[in-house]
Amino acid sequence: MRVERDCVGELEIEKDALYGINAVRAAHNFPISEEKSNPLLIKSMIEVKKAAAMANHISGAIDGAKAQAIIGACEQLLKEKYNSKAFIVPAFQGGAGTSVNMNVNEVIANLANRNNHSQNINPNDDVNLAQSTNDTFPTAGKLAMLKLLPSLQEKVLALVEVLEEKEKEFKDTVKLGRTQLQDAVPTTFGNSFRAYASLFKRDYSRLRNVEEHLVFVNLGGTAIGTGLNADDIYQKKVVEKLSQITGIQLKQANDLIDATQNCDVFLELSGVLKTLAVDLSKFSNDLRLLSSGPQAGFAELKLPARQAGSSIMPGKVNPVIPEVVNQVAFQVIGNDAAITMAVEGGQLELNAFEPLIFRNLLQNETFLERAITTLIDNCVSGIEVNQEICKKEVEDSVILATALTPALGYRETTRIVKLAMKEHCSIKEIVLSEGIMAETKFDSLMNAANLLHEKIAEVTV
Amino acid sequence: MRVERDCVGELEIEKDALYGINAVRAAHNFPISEEKSNPLLIKSMIEVKKAAAMANHISGAIDGAKAQAIIGACEQLLKEKYNSKAFIVPAFQGGAGTSVNMNVNEVIANLANRNNHSQNINPNDDVNLAQSTNDTFPTAGKLAMLKLLPSLQEKVLALVEVLEEKEKEFKDTVKLGRTQLQDAVPTTFGNSFRAYASLFKRDYSRLRNVEEHLVFVNLGGTAIGTGLNADDIYQKKVVEKLSQITGIQLKQANDLIDATQNCDVFLELSGVLKTLAVDLSKFSNDLRLLSSGPQAGFAELKLPARQAGSSIMPGKVNPVIPEVVNQVAFQVIGNDAAITMAVEGGQLELNAFEPLIFRNLLQNETFLERAITTLIDNCVSGIEVNQEICKKEVEDSVILATALTPALGYRETTRIVKLAMKEHCSIKEIVLSEGIMAETKFDSLMNAANLLHEKIAEVTV
Amino acid sequence: MRVERDCVGELEIEKDALYGINAVRAAHNFPISEEKSNPLLIKSMIEVKKAAAMANHISGAIDGAKAQAIIGACEQLLKEKYNSKAFIVPAFQGGAGTSVNMNVNEVIANLANRNNHSQNINPNDDVNLAQSTNDTFPTAGKLAMLKLLPSLQEKVLALVEVLEEKEKEFKDTVKLGRTQLQDAVPTTFGNSFRAYASLFKRDYSRLRNVEEHLVFVNLGGTAIGTGLNADDIYQKKVVEKLSQITGIQLKQANDLIDATQNCDVFLELSGVLKTLAVDLSKFSNDLRLLSSGPQAGFAELKLPARQAGSSIMPGKVNPVIPEVVNQVAFQVIGNDAAITMAVEGGQLELNAFEPLIFRNLLQNETFLERAITTLIDNCVSGIEVNQEICKKEVEDSVILATALTPALGYRETTRIVKLAMKEHCSIKEIVLSEGIMAETKFDSLMNAANLLHEKIAEVTV
Amino acid sequence: MRVERDCVGELEIEKDALYGINAVRAAHNFPISEEKSNPLLIKSMIEVKKAAAMANHISGAIDGAKAQAIIGACEQLLKEKYNSKAFIVPAFQGGAGTSVNMNVNEVIANLANRNNHSQNINPNDDVNLAQSTNDTFPTAGKLAMLKLLPSLQEKVLALVEVLEEKEKEFKDTVKLGRTQLQDAVPTTFGNSFRAYASLFKRDYSRLRNVEEHLVFVNLGGTAIGTGLNADDIYQKKVVEKLSQITGIQLKQANDLIDATQNCDVFLELSGVLKTLAVDLSKFSNDLRLLSSGPQAGFAELKLPARQAGSSIMPGKVNPVIPEVVNQVAFQVIGNDAAITMAVEGGQLELNAFEPLIFRNLLQNETFLERAITTLIDNCVSGIEVNQEICKKEVEDSVILATALTPALGYRETTRIVKLAMKEHCSIKEIVLSEGIMAETKFDSLMNAANLLHEKIAEVTV
Repeated sequence: MRVERDCVGELEIEKDALYGINAVRAAHNFPISEEKSNPLLIKSMIEVKKAAAMANHISGAIDGAKAQAIIGACEQLLKEKYNSKAFIVPAFQGGAGTSVNMNVNEVIANLANRNNHSQNINPNDDVNLAQSTNDTFPTAGKLAMLKLLPSLQEKVLALVEVLEEKEKEFKDTVKLGRTQLQDAVPTTFGNSFRAYASLFKRDYSRLRNVEEHLVFVNLGGTAIGTGLNADDIYQKKVVEKLSQITGIQLKQANDLIDATQNCDVFLELSGVLKTLAVDLSKFSNDLRLLSSGPQAGFAELKLPARQAGSSIMPGKVNPVIPEVVNQVAFQVIGNDAAITMAVEGGQLELNAFEPLIFRNLLQNETFLERAITTLIDNCVSGIEVNQEICKKEVEDSVILATALTPALGYRETTRIVKLAMKEHCSIKEIVLSEGIMAETKFDSLMNAANLLHEKIAEVTV
Repeated sequence: MRVERDCVGELEIEKDALYGINAVRAAHNFPISEEKSNPLLIKSMIEVKKAAAMANHISGAIDGAKAQAIIGACEQLLKEKYNSKAFIVPAFQGGAGTSVNMNVNEVIANLANRNNHSQNINPNDDVNLAQSTNDTFPTAGKLAMLKLLPSLQEKVLALVEVLEEKEKEFKDTVKLGRTQLQDAVPTTFGNSFRAYASLFKRDYSRLRNVEEHLVFVNLGGTAIGTGLNADDIYQKKVVEKLSQITGIQLKQANDLIDATQNCDVFLELSGVLKTLAVDLSKFSNDLRLLSSGPQAGFAELKLPARQAGSSIMPGKVNPVIPEVVNQVAFQVIGNDAAITMAVEGGQLELNAFEPLIFRNLLQNETFLERAITTLIDNCVSGIEVNQEICKKEVEDSVILATALTPALGYRETTRIVKLAMKEHCSIKEIVLSEGIMAETKFDSLMNAANLLHEKIAEVTV
Repeated sequence: MRVERDCVGELEIEKDALYGINAVRAAHNFPISEEKSNPLLIKSMIEVKKAAAMANHISGAIDGAKAQAIIGACEQLLKEKYNSKAFIVPAFQGGAGTSVNMNVNEVIANLANRNNHSQNINPNDDVNLAQSTNDTFPTAGKLAMLKLLPSLQEKVLALVEVLEEKEKEFKDTVKLGRTQLQDAVPTTFGNSFRAYASLFKRDYSRLRNVEEHLVFVNLGGTAIGTGLNADDIYQKKVVEKLSQITGIQLKQANDLIDATQNCDVFLELSGVLKTLAVDLSKFSNDLRLLSSGPQAGFAELKLPARQAGSSIMPGKVNPVIPEVVNQVAFQVIGNDAAITMAVEGGQLELNAFEPLIFRNLLQNETFLERAITTLIDNCVSGIEVNQEICKKEVEDSVILATALTPALGYRETTRIVKLAMKEHCSIKEIVLSEGIMAETKFDSLMNAANLLHEKIAEVTV
Repeated sequence: MRVERDCVGELEIEKDALYGINAVRAAHNFPISEEKSNPLLIKSMIEVKKAAAMANHISGAIDGAKAQAIIGACEQLLKEKYNSKAFIVPAFQGGAGTSVNMNVNEVIANLANRNNHSQNINPNDDVNLAQSTNDTFPTAGKLAMLKLLPSLQEKVLALVEVLEEKEKEFKDTVKLGRTQLQDAVPTTFGNSFRAYASLFKRDYSRLRNVEEHLVFVNLGGTAIGTGLNADDIYQKKVVEKLSQITGIQLKQANDLIDATQNCDVFLELSGVLKTLAVDLSKFSNDLRLLSSGPQAGFAELKLPARQAGSSIMPGKVNPVIPEVVNQVAFQVIGNDAAITMAVEGGQLELNAFEPLIFRNLLQNETFLERAITTLIDNCVSGIEVNQEICKKEVEDSVILATALTPALGYRETTRIVKLAMKEHCSIKEIVLSEGIMAETKFDSLMNAANLLHEKIAEVTV
């Protein structure tokens, strides 16, 4: 064991541990769950530290040897498999990220010293030079969120593509529409799947637009955005260096005070993710409903069977993939509620609840990306339609009489519909038996092209 | 116009207005919506003022003439039609209820003085004597909530009763159960409606239990619960008087500091109302699903037609009553989210956001009571079942093979079910054609009594 | 009384009522609250009806006389004071807006017939021609939301402006920053108010961006987006006409099926409004905290006195304006929760819960606009700072020692800070008495320009 | 590798794996996060299986050898360290718990067969005999929740106790109260801590009451509550056996259909936990505010220093423990939002979203218990008050003039308060210099006993 001290006192630390006293205190103070701080967040912190060392060297604040020792340690950590033994700060933590920042500072300093057989790199004075938790931690948080966005965007696009394939596959499958769960005028499953594709295209667009505000970081602002203790040259260089290291085009916020204290941008991202979650949930609800049955339900869609559905009912197959997507969606919505309270609770020059905000946002991005993956691979790509049922439902439906209203008026058509339901006969039988309309006229109004308004569809779609 | 002044300055007031400068300032400061403070809350405040005047007279703090002037004005206001011209403070308001309290103090004082052709009743020194907004306003809030509870409880019981009538009416209607929207083993609509009745019985029980904490009021605690400026005798008498006036058995909190600053009891009530809302929403979802169709849906239930369902589709009838219940439920859930934030945001000796908490809770109680009313009267009481469809679904269902598993095992039964689905034939045909089981044995396993497990049902229900 | 009938049966209606049987049934079916459908939504529906009549005339579906009768009635309704006696459908309603649509159809038809002393305009066959609730109602909803956006945007900009004035006014007021409510390095109130201005500029930007998706309407799609019963020419003209009538550049959605069933765009708007609400709440929390006191609190800001703060404590003034803004924010957040559930609950070709979605969004836009108005007028514009307290806090603060760390290192500075706190002396006294640093060096590190990092501030701001 | 098959097809399984095909399919279908199903839930499932085997043996459905093989395997699993390699079903899962149930059935069957060198125990036909996921999974869920309740209840009581110790410790520390963050009449820190104690006593009471509904399980109901395939004797015995095994007094629900489909009881528990979370958050907010400073804040309380507060500001100590409690509270509130949606989304005879409901509830119970633990140990037990500041604030405060109002009236006292503020002098100086009141009278009104209303305090507390 080795002994370290801080402003609180002394503490024994495992002799070979890369972390130091700050990390150990956090592990002791925050025993809420076994979940550690997000590895992608830690990696982004290390990139921030590397950029800072480079900028500090340019400004002359540290010499080449120190800079190289720090940068080398950072690169080693970034190259290696994630070192979960070194980064021990729990995901749930007080302190606005200070524990994560210091854990990273400690690991880099210890590793640099170990590599260089020296003790001249100090976590605070060197690794953290010209920095504060309050600018490095949110910068790393945004970086991590930005890194997860492209794969989520691509996955949403992949969902759009598979939906558009289904649109083509089912373009001729006429089916009954429903409004308020009651039989409505006909449509096609091609239309239905195109509508889902259109929906997720907007989600994609929102996921792209949200980057606009997210790329502005407060790195260089130090404790509260005034930049105290940060050299001018460092301040001008550090974000540029970080962009080069990560390949992500970050920008330094114009107003660093604002960028340090306000978390609206995180709420904006959370709102976009929540909307995606709600859309996925609505889509999953529809899939579950349209595949209900197989005998005594809507039974219009067949979802691929993925596992035995019941421990007691043999042969039962359940819509397990949409069900897990629903639950992921609910959790994303719940995490947004937590984020909302955390953002609202920020006070004065800093939001102390950023650890929760970042944890939940990174979780939401990952959960959604994975939920869409299983939704595509294990469900949507293998969906089939039950042509027979769809056809029969349309043929039998009295609601097709809607197409007669331009000719007969609403009230007269209502009478016919009610009569057909009561007498269990078809609209056509009534219209012809009562001599309301010639059969040719009736057939022209009731053919699929008119019912689906196809010419217009071509025009407008 | 007459001129009044307060610590901010002077203001002109309508000459005949019963309200005074405090109420006018509130109307000016809080122009958020047209919604005024809840009349039931105002009436409860007036009852508090009457009780205070009685207790202040007993303690000797005011003489008989003043007491009688105040009490007389209160009784007049309580007897008359609600005077919406006198009570002008908006529902959304800052100030933790001070504006409502002062509006009430002003109206009572002005009315008392008018009745007695004098000017000797002062809103602060007499009507508000030994009181603060911080004890009178939450006391009135709880009083109003307690007044709304019985009719809500009765309405929930009325729903239970109509569900139990439906249970009896449909006890012999065998139908297919569904788990995860997929066909499952059979049940009866009697079972289904009893299950809803059992659900709402628990809601009733929760609505009764919630009174336990709600009856404790902080009246007598004045500004922060220490009771500064309240006479001992007054403090001992005022809650007793208020109970006599209202007929509601209130109790004075043991810890008046706690009762003044903590709003957990309101959150408890809100949670109970939210649970009721969620249960109503689940029930409404089921009703909408089970009545989907009329041709291409579940179509097992027929809800009473209440209005034309579509401006374009003649003869369409929609489940408008469950739909409005769903929306009320969503709003109650949303109002709970607002209440949650308001309760969490309380600081130190007082929660400044009680006006919103009370507004939303009173709204939720009223909304739910009315939603259940229309649900009973315009929907549940008139529900019919489609016997034919229910019967056919059960007869055709391959999932009934579940009853064979004790005899055949899960794997063999799975094979039979899959074969039946594939060959579009019945379970019985396969079992007999393959010689798996004697027909009498098969029939005894597959008869309704065994499928519904009826003997057990009798025992356990 | 006159008698009308629909598919449910007959009903007596007030003889002179402009509404008809559909509106009356709604009023009877949905007795949830006294709140009626939003007048701006009704007005937007009337504009839709006018546009439809114009487009139907161009397509030849109705003759000039009928078109003129309908258009004339619409214009009359739009010109007159809002006729709250004619539009009686409750805000909370089932039926996905059908009741509102039919109420409007009925009023227009009755008024047109009354004006023309005829009975030849029919609510369904003429006023609703080529339309459905399912395209007119969401179109009117979006129209109403778009109409409220500019004044909200302007109000947010006005808030930015007054904050920027305060920034200038307080640019030289040095004050202590706080992170996690603990004393931190210094800043200025100019910085603080600029940070709020920067925050609300982003809100403004979001409020502008949200129009992008919102302008796409599904008018022309009729019942489910296929456009059944809508003439091609009508379909091409109706949105153009509506844009001309309203002066708002609407676009017809490419995918009318999607635009009819998916409500993600409403959730997107709700998310933007929620973010604004959270930002306003954070700002209000800060104002309340910074003005706490007046003696035993932060007391750095003085908010204008707007009303007597207490019925029992004389001379007390409370931050009533930020308090009402907090509560509005909580309600907007709660309304978003309700909207979230409503959007998620949409099924298949239509979301039945649009009435709640529209009610809450229009409410949120209005509430926020009015909350910001009172926040500007009654609070922010009159804010003053307590120079004396701000100055003294900075002078006394040991945390200024942070500026010494580049010279002395973190550990040594920690020792000095702890010693200063313990000995109740200043950092300077310790530094000089221990001979750690020359006074001139100390003074150059601790002067305001260095502490505030002013050169950089100029560069980056 | 070994090969297993189900209704979907064949799959290769690790040769020595205790799990089987159902568990593997789940792991493949639900790759949302690394989080596995809650071990306590799994353990409770094993107890259910043991009870079922015992009851099945009593009813004669399985012979002694099979029963003993199953029971032995269960006991072995319960005794050993939790076997995380055997239980591989992800926490996020579709299928309403079937994967967890089958994973447990498979592990028990494989272990029993391994122990007995046989193959005669089948996961479905033997281990799952007379059971369904739909009765075993919610029973295990409730069991797990009930197991976590006592330690949470005890922790809440421990918090009450430490608060009551603080009450005694600080009973003579007079301090200023604040309402709406503005200076109000005085109180003591004894009062403050007693108020918190009173608050958490109610939370304790709610945590006890919530057991009332939670102990009712649907075990014996099989697939949908009708009890199909469950023998009468089994049904009567199985819950009794489970109670004996676990030491928790469970009861079989009277209405098994209801108990299978309705999840209101989970929402009730979630509401109670949410209220506790909100109360902890409010308490943490107060602690953070009252300890703000140390120089330029309220600074009335000193929280124990637990870690260095800043990487840049030396000597800074932050309220990290209340901060982590706030964040836990926000997450509990967010998890409740997810639970609310999951409960609302249940359909017909089963709620498919129970896996999420159980995951979140068990998480909330654990998080809260641990958050309170660190709150007690690392914060509340070491809280000290700053006597000097408290004393000075009371002495200086003009709001004490409230005690003069019974003598002078509200308006006159307001004048005095405003004058004192303006002239920066004390209330006493004005009262005496203007000759308003004799000094002895003034002193008797303004002494601590009167200000704190102590006699009454004794009476009422």
